[in-house]
Amino acid sequence: MFSYLPPVKHMRYVLQDVLSATRRLQGEAGFDELDDDLVRQVLDQAGRFASEVLFPLNASGDRQGCSFDNGEVRTPDGYAGAYRQFQEAGWAALACDPAHGGQGLPHVLNCALQEMMISANHAWTMYPGLLHGAYACLKEHGSEELKRRYLPRLVSGEWLATMCLTEPQAGSDVGLLRTRAVATDDGGYHISGSKIFISGGEHDLTENIVHLVLARIPDAPAGSRGISLFVVPKIRPDGSRNNVLCTGIEHKMGIRGSATCSLDFEQASGWLVGEPHRGLAAMFVMMNAARMLVGAQGLGIAEAVHQNAERYARERVQAKAVVRPPERGGHAADPIILHPPVRRLLATQRALVEGGRMMLYWSGLMLDLAERSPDAARRERLGQLLALVTPVVKAFLTQKGFDGASAALQVYGGYGVITETGVEQYLRDARVTMIYEGTNEIQAIDLVVRKIIGDGGASLGLLLRDIADTARAERAGPLGRYAAALATLADDLGAIGKRLSTPGATTPELPHWIAQDVLQLVGHGVMGWLWLRSARASLDDRDADTGFHDERLATAAHYFAYVFPETAASLAIVRQCLAGDGVAP
Amino acid sequence: MFSYLPPVKHMRYVLQDVLSATRRLQGEAGFDELDDDLVRQVLDQAGRFASEVLFPLNASGDRQGCSFDNGEVRTPDGYAGAYRQFQEAGWAALACDPAHGGQGLPHVLNCALQEMMISANHAWTMYPGLLHGAYACLKEHGSEELKRRYLPRLVSGEWLATMCLTEPQAGSDVGLLRTRAVATDDGGYHISGSKIFISGGEHDLTENIVHLVLARIPDAPAGSRGISLFVVPKIRPDGSRNNVLCTGIEHKMGIRGSATCSLDFEQASGWLVGEPHRGLAAMFVMMNAARMLVGAQGLGIAEAVHQNAERYARERVQAKAVVRPPERGGHAADPIILHPPVRRLLATQRALVEGGRMMLYWSGLMLDLAERSPDAARRERLGQLLALVTPVVKAFLTQKGFDGASAALQVYGGYGVITETGVEQYLRDARVTMIYEGTNEIQAIDLVVRKIIGDGGASLGLLLRDIADTARAERAGPLGRYAAALATLADDLGAIGKRLSTPGATTPELPHWIAQDVLQLVGHGVMGWLWLRSARASLDDRDADTGFHDERLATAAHYFAYVFPETAASLAIVRQCLAGDGVAP
Repeated sequence: MFSYLPPVKHMRYVLQDVLSATRRLQGEAGFDELDDDLVRQVLDQAGRFASEVLFPLNASGDRQGCSFDNGEVRTPDGYAGAYRQFQEAGWAALACDPAHGGQGLPHVLNCALQEMMISANHAWTMYPGLLHGAYACLKEHGSEELKRRYLPRLVSGEWLATMCLTEPQAGSDVGLLRTRAVATDDGGYHISGSKIFISGGEHDLTENIVHLVLARIPDAPAGSRGISLFVVPKIRPDGSRNNVLCTGIEHKMGIRGSATCSLDFEQASGWLVGEPHRGLAAMFVMMNAARMLVGAQGLGIAEAVHQNAERYARERVQAKAVVRPPERGGHAADPIILHPPVRRLLATQRALVEGGRMMLYWSGLMLDLAERSPDAARRERLGQLLALVTPVVKAFLTQKGFDGASAALQVYGGYGVITETGVEQYLRDARVTMIYEGTNEIQAIDLVVRKIIGDGGASLGLLLRDIADTARAERAGPLGRYAAALATLADDLGAIGKRLSTPGATTPELPHWIAQDVLQLVGHGVMGWLWLRSARASLDDRDADTGFHDERLATAAHYFAYVFPETAASLAIVRQCLAGDGVAP
Repeated sequence: MFSYLPPVKHMRYVLQDVLSATRRLQGEAGFDELDDDLVRQVLDQAGRFASEVLFPLNASGDRQGCSFDNGEVRTPDGYAGAYRQFQEAGWAALACDPAHGGQGLPHVLNCALQEMMISANHAWTMYPGLLHGAYACLKEHGSEELKRRYLPRLVSGEWLATMCLTEPQAGSDVGLLRTRAVATDDGGYHISGSKIFISGGEHDLTENIVHLVLARIPDAPAGSRGISLFVVPKIRPDGSRNNVLCTGIEHKMGIRGSATCSLDFEQASGWLVGEPHRGLAAMFVMMNAARMLVGAQGLGIAEAVHQNAERYARERVQAKAVVRPPERGGHAADPIILHPPVRRLLATQRALVEGGRMMLYWSGLMLDLAERSPDAARRERLGQLLALVTPVVKAFLTQKGFDGASAALQVYGGYGVITETGVEQYLRDARVTMIYEGTNEIQAIDLVVRKIIGDGGASLGLLLRDIADTARAERAGPLGRYAAALATLADDLGAIGKRLSTPGATTPELPHWIAQDVLQLVGHGVMGWLWLRSARASLDDRDADTGFHDERLATAAHYFAYVFPETAASLAIVRQCLAGDGVAP
């Protein structure tokens, strides 16, 4: 049977041994009350909520799906009860400001919470998925009135939130949107238009839903510089029903328990968030947090399927292994984990799951430090780094999550495609993560064009310097081979960044053309760097828990031998394109 | 809307311009009546059947699925009618011997037929999917009595066939099967046991179903050397119902219109095919044909999704392109095919689809020549080559088919995961092709351990010699760069094959551990070779249809610049393992 065991031990290893998160959050970011005990408590409780409350609804929610009738959406059986427990436990408030009723815990713990909820039930987790983003957006850009009205209800989870960008003709290009916002006499706006693909646009989990809607004020500039952001609640402050109508829900490949809604706004009451025509900037606060959490989805999926595939490979007996442990001598066949291709597949997935967790938590920690470090220069530096790696976290981890679900399914053989086995649902659920919150192609272009070329390679330089420093420190020791591989990649990436940032050095299309390869290289740069740090931590702490640390060291070795070489293909392509050989545009 | 246009023009290009198939089938294989006109007629008719009869049932069959009630299976609406048309048109008989009522056309045309049927409707095509394999198996191993009884009905399509291998504890390892066969006084057997995952094990398309069942005769040797093959018809020759009961059908990720059945045999009447205990050898006749046709499934899926994604990319307008054609100046946004990442994705898919078609048809042509060449030495040589590349065709093309469906879905953005768009069904349908008829891991081991090491590298040597000959001939000309890349890969593969075939040169597990990488390298060796031959053909014939041939030449260029470099990662891994660096087993 498919199951989910929260990987709390590995999470604590990443937070404490690899990233020294607690110490840094105390020292650098002023989380005074935070200690390892509290971290462990939060992880344990979040793990219980995910595995005991959410996971049991995962397969049934997929089978049942949502139903739509006359503007109303019914979520699968059990979803509403699980949401009440989520709300009562205060999970919505985890990383929110105590001034608004939050628990004031760091983002990095929210990353762990999100990972576990996704592992347990991706579809359900879509409903509160935008709560934190809406909170962050209103906190930064909302008027005092809007903050007073909405922040406490979002922080408590009493109300849920959506992000309404997409229209049929305006997907990746929000600049094409047509929804209109006309000012009214009372200082508000009337919002009219149709939005599609709105996750949780309508449901039966909360009484009110806070829609954050992008729309165009009359006479606004064309394109993305003429878009404003509005709060449009399902229930108006006076208690009346707003003119927001759900006109249907989608039939989808996956996350079938999540209602993907079409919404019609007909002169709906809305309130401006931030400055007119500056809606995209306000929305981007939400988008960036959301992108990191989509990365967490990739990780959560990869973790859940990996642990199940590994267990199945220990149980499933099929064919004699090439090299048999002596104790299997009398058996007609061996557990498939003894077969080299299965063992390699699982080791590769373990390296990607554990490496992905280091990558996500490292980003979450940077977000905390970037917000709260007392040193402004350091805040800026961390903010730059974070902006650089956010598209990488999103695209790299979602690709690995989808691929990981497919790899895990392969371990199950024919049983893998059978619905009751459970793994095929994860593969279906995973697919959309490579699309929403900006397709992975858009993430790659964001990385290369805006984040690398946009600042002349400065942010990339910061990252590469950190990587090179670690590599240099490890060059002579037992981890020298990993350090050398990493140093070479850092050098290569430095040269690529410099070339791309040199005005006129490439055709205008070239950076877009090779963006995906560069993203792969940066992804492995970060993941390899973190595996090197993990190996160092495990070498240092080895005596404390030898079996555990030896497993990490073996996984680091596998990563550098069998996963990191993926960079060879990307490098070959980028080099050839930069050499200007006539095939690249 | 999703649609399917049979790519007859490209099929004819591959058959005639690249492979000179008609000429070789006439000259070398004695297909005297075959000419280009007949080929075109068959392709046109098959294309009409696929696009006009099968495709309209594809989405509806997925939605409706099969239903099971009290041992009976109902296929989706329209399936039975389509099957009658298939039967009446004589498609079952296409590549069968005229002596048994067949049309006597070459296998390579059957490959094209299969590709088109899968593009149009994978689930439906599962039903007649084993017809040809059952025919070939009975023709080669059946008694005269069995041949008389079953071959004409299979060739006419009046009855359908299954392959009953899998049991719950015996999947990849058929040696573990437990179904028993006890001889009866009348020279037959009583078959008892439970089989699972039997495609088309029960349905309402034909009155009789001819099950080919693997079972164990009492006192047979243990393992795979004690397995015998039996014909167990649903209806006995005397017209009575045999004791074969369908006990259920599976809920699956994809190919939902195909009934995947559990069958109970309770002292069912069966007849031995071939020698006792030699069932696997007999079944392998069926398996090898089936593996090539699963490769055709990968191709069929990749073709269907690619042509739709490309059309969508021309229609969908989103964001301004980096470099805009002058005529788009007045528009707010451009077709997404003008965006470099979309253009590159589509070009890569085109290279894999067209390259995959060359690979499949080349294999099909070899099968024809291997069966019918008048020269025994040549037949043997071709048989060796075919045995070598069959696992590559199966694993390489199904992986590319699944990846292609995911890539095509990505082009659709958010619409891609919506059921009504159509592409997500292809992704779900595609997944099982990497598993059935031997998982892709098993194909890789078959390639490396049995086909390369098993004959001391001789077959691989044959293939590499052909590749090197073509590369040498093109080295100095305009295709010299492709030839050089290919020659280098052939050299590398030769060295790898030699090393692997040297007794004691590696640990026992190593060939299994790197089998997948070797398969990737051989796959690109074959595909690259065929792209080189295509480029040569298009250069020579360019004046006849310049636009068409220039597109092929551009695709060849794209293949060598952006797809072939996938080999860099596999090569890096294989080299490192063969260097014996301590990480590999």
